Amino acid sequence: MLVESWLDSANAEGCPFPVNNLALGVFSVGEDLPCCGVAIGDMIFNCRSACQAGLLQPENCRLFDAPSWNAVMEAGPAIWRDLRLQLTELFVKGCKNQAEVREHLVPISDATLHMPFRVAEFTDFYAGRHHATNVGTMFRGAENALPPNWLHIPIGYNGRASSVVVSGAGVRRPWGQLKSPDHEKPAFLPSRRFDFELEMGAIVGTPSTGPVSVDEADSMIFGYVLLNDWSARDIQAWEYQPLGPFQAKATATSISPWIIMAEALEPFRVMTPEREFELLPHLKDTGPMLYDINLRVDLATSEGPVQTITQTNYREMYYSAAQQLAHHVSSGCPMRAGDLLGSGTISGPEKHQRGSMLELSWGGKEPIELLAGRKRTFLEDGDTVILTGEARGKDYIIGFGECAGQLLPALEEPYGKQD
Amino acid sequence: MLVESWLDSANAEGCPFPVNNLALGVFSVGEDLPCCGVAIGDMIFNCRSACQAGLLQPENCRLFDAPSWNAVMEAGPAIWRDLRLQLTELFVKGCKNQAEVREHLVPISDATLHMPFRVAEFTDFYAGRHHATNVGTMFRGAENALPPNWLHIPIGYNGRASSVVVSGAGVRRPWGQLKSPDHEKPAFLPSRRFDFELEMGAIVGTPSTGPVSVDEADSMIFGYVLLNDWSARDIQAWEYQPLGPFQAKATATSISPWIIMAEALEPFRVMTPEREFELLPHLKDTGPMLYDINLRVDLATSEGPVQTITQTNYREMYYSAAQQLAHHVSSGCPMRAGDLLGSGTISGPEKHQRGSMLELSWGGKEPIELLAGRKRTFLEDGDTVILTGEARGKDYIIGFGECAGQLLPALEEPYGKQD
Repeated sequence: MLVESWLDSANAEGCPFPVNNLALGVFSVGEDLPCCGVAIGDMIFNCRSACQAGLLQPENCRLFDAPSWNAVMEAGPAIWRDLRLQLTELFVKGCKNQAEVREHLVPISDATLHMPFRVAEFTDFYAGRHHATNVGTMFRGAENALPPNWLHIPIGYNGRASSVVVSGAGVRRPWGQLKSPDHEKPAFLPSRRFDFELEMGAIVGTPSTGPVSVDEADSMIFGYVLLNDWSARDIQAWEYQPLGPFQAKATATSISPWIIMAEALEPFRVMTPEREFELLPHLKDTGPMLYDINLRVDLATSEGPVQTITQTNYREMYYSAAQQLAHHVSSGCPMRAGDLLGSGTISGPEKHQRGSMLELSWGGKEPIELLAGRKRTFLEDGDTVILTGEARGKDYIIGFGECAGQLLPALEEPYGKQD
Repeated sequence: MLVESWLDSANAEGCPFPVNNLALGVFSVGEDLPCCGVAIGDMIFNCRSACQAGLLQPENCRLFDAPSWNAVMEAGPAIWRDLRLQLTELFVKGCKNQAEVREHLVPISDATLHMPFRVAEFTDFYAGRHHATNVGTMFRGAENALPPNWLHIPIGYNGRASSVVVSGAGVRRPWGQLKSPDHEKPAFLPSRRFDFELEMGAIVGTPSTGPVSVDEADSMIFGYVLLNDWSARDIQAWEYQPLGPFQAKATATSISPWIIMAEALEPFRVMTPEREFELLPHLKDTGPMLYDINLRVDLATSEGPVQTITQTNYREMYYSAAQQLAHHVSSGCPMRAGDLLGSGTISGPEKHQRGSMLELSWGGKEPIELLAGRKRTFLEDGDTVILTGEARGKDYIIGFGECAGQLLPALEEPYGKQD
C-alpha cells in the first residue's frame, strides 16, 4: 500500500520514489561537495544538512559526513531500520515539520549523482540458469550446456572494484589480446565483441569473518542496485582458460545511483525456482529469497529512436543473493561493508528476455533488428545501454532509477605515438 | 657494496636489514598504537616519532600518521627516493645525529608486526612456467600442459583483498563443497588437500587509469613482499570451471611484514627467460625485469624439527611483475596505490625446487619424506609453513624477513550446533 506523503510528487502515479522506497544516493548541486541524500518524489533530501538542523537524530550526523553510505552500513541493521523510520516520519502525510523539511530538498533534476558507496570488493556471479544455458549451448552444445557444478553451487569469480562506475559515466571500448579461430597468432586490437550484461547488484552491509547461514546472509544485505557488467567477449574467449575472466571484465561495471534498501523490497519476495538437485544444507532455500523486480534494457543509438531490446525479471535467477553470499563466505572469506555482489546475467526463458547481446544475437549469428532498418550483433561506438528496474505494488512502485552508459570509441593509440 | 652504518648490527654478516635495504613495516610495542617503522640491523626506526622530532622532513610527517605505508606510496616516486635518501643519511657511518636517532629505535624482538599496507585489491597470477607445466601435466598430460594462451599473456585472476593477512596469523582449514571423482554427489566437508603456494607479491604504488607501457608499469611498483597463496586443491577442482578459482583461494593469503622497496632490489635485476613466442609489443621485455632472489620454504611440524622442503629463485618466473601489471591495465582497468599482485607459484626446474605440495607430492601420489620417518602429501593441522627470501650481494644481503602461517584445524561446526 502506498504510504502517502505531504509531498505530492511522491504520491504521483508511476513515481519511482514514494515514501515506501527511500532510495539512498550521493548527490551534489553546482560546486557543492557531494553528500548523502534520499530520493523522495522528484526531490532529493539532504541528509547532512537536515541532520545538522536537528531533523534526524543528532547521534546519526557523523554517518552523513562522508559522501558515501558506507558509514550507515557499518552502523548495523538496527540503524538501517531506525533511519527508515525517521525518514518515513518526516515525509508521511501529516508530518508537522514540513516547512523545515522542505528547506533540505533539492530537485533531482538539478543534481549530479555520484557513486552511492565505496565498493570494498566486487564479486560477479553466474547464477541465472537461462543465461548459463544459453552461453553453454553456444560454446559446448545443448547436452553439456551447464557445467557439472552449476546446479550445486552459485558459480562466481572476483571482479575488480576499481572499475565500478556510476550510471552516466562513459565506457571506453577496450583494447585487448584476441585470437580469432581463423588466425594463427594472437593480436592486440580493440575489442570487436563488446557487450552489456543485465544484472542486479547486492550490497553487503554487515561484515563477517566466517561461515554464515543463508538466513544470516540475507540479513547482511543492505540493499540492491542495477548493474551492467560490460564484457569484451573476444578478450574473454582467449584469456579465460584456465583461471576465468580477467581483462574482459575489467574495463568497467556500471551501477545505478540509488541504493534500494532490502527493507523496501520486502513485499516483493518470491520463491527461487524448483531445484533439480537438492542443495546442500548450508545453501538451502529457507523461504522466498528472490524479488519480483521487472527489468528492462533500452538501447539508444545515433541513428534511431531509443528502443527496448530486452525485458525480464530478477525472479528468473536460480540462486538468491543470500545464497551467493553464504557460498562466498563458506571458506572463511571475510566480507566488509560495501562488498558488491553481481547476480550474474538475468535472462528469461524467451528470446526477447535475454540479458546480453551475446544471447540476443546468438553469438553474433542472428543480428537483432532495430527500427530504421539497422541491425546489431554486439555494441557499436556511440551506443548507450540503459537498464531500468521496478517492483510494482498494487498502488505504488519501488523504482531503481536507471543505469546508463555510452560506449566511447577505443583509444587510437593506447601507448601514445610510437616513432 | 655494503653501505656501512654506525649501528653495528646493520653491518653484521648475514644481517637481512643493512642500510642498503631500509625495509618498511608497521609495528607496535606493548599497548602503543601501530605505526610506520623501518628495519635497520636488529632494530626498528619509528618514523612517526622521528619525524615529529625533526629527524625527517617535517612536510613528510603526515605520511606517517596512519599505520600503513599507503600514504607514502600515494606521495609518488620522487618522495620514495627522497625518503630513502633521508633514511640513508641518518644511518650511514659518520652521521652526526646518532644520539637523537637512537631515541627512536626499538628492538625488532620487542615489536609486534602488523600488515604493512592496506591492500586495495589483490590479483594473483600464474606466471611461473615450471609450476604451470607441472600442474598442467598432472591434470591434462604433458602434451597439453600449457594452455594455448599461456606463452602470450601472463594469465591472472582477481583474488580477495579482505583475506590477505600478515605473517604470524593462523590460517584455519576451510570447509567447502567438494566432489571426489569416486563420489556421485558433492559434499560439504573440510578441505583434505590444503596447500601453500610460494610466491612474491608486487605492490603497486602509483595509480593509473589507462594502458601503460612495461617500463611505466615497472616504475609504478613500490616494492615487494613474500606471499603464500594458501590453496584448497579439492575445493578448486570442483569449482574452477568455467570461471576460475574462488573459495579455494579465499581463506587466506599471507604476506611477509616488511615491504622491500624496488630501489633496494635494483642491483639484483636479471633477464626474463628466452621467449618461445615473441611477445606482443605492449608486453615485450625492455631489459632485465626479474630479480635474483633466493627463496626457501621450511615446514615446522609437531613431530619433528623444522625442515626445508623447497628452494628456488624468483628469476624462474616467465613474466615479470611489470609485464603482469602492463597486461592488467591493458583493458583500461584502473589501479590504485596498495594493489597487490601475486607472481604465481615459483617453482624451479628440479623436483626439490617446486613451490607447492601439489607439485612436491605430485598430486598426492608421491608423498614427500620428512625427518623422523614422517611423510606429507598435503598440509596437516598444526603444520607451520615458513617462506624466506633474500637477495645476496657481494658483502651484504637484502632480506625479506619471513612469511609464516600455521594451519589450524577446521571448525567443528561451521554453522553452530544444529538441533
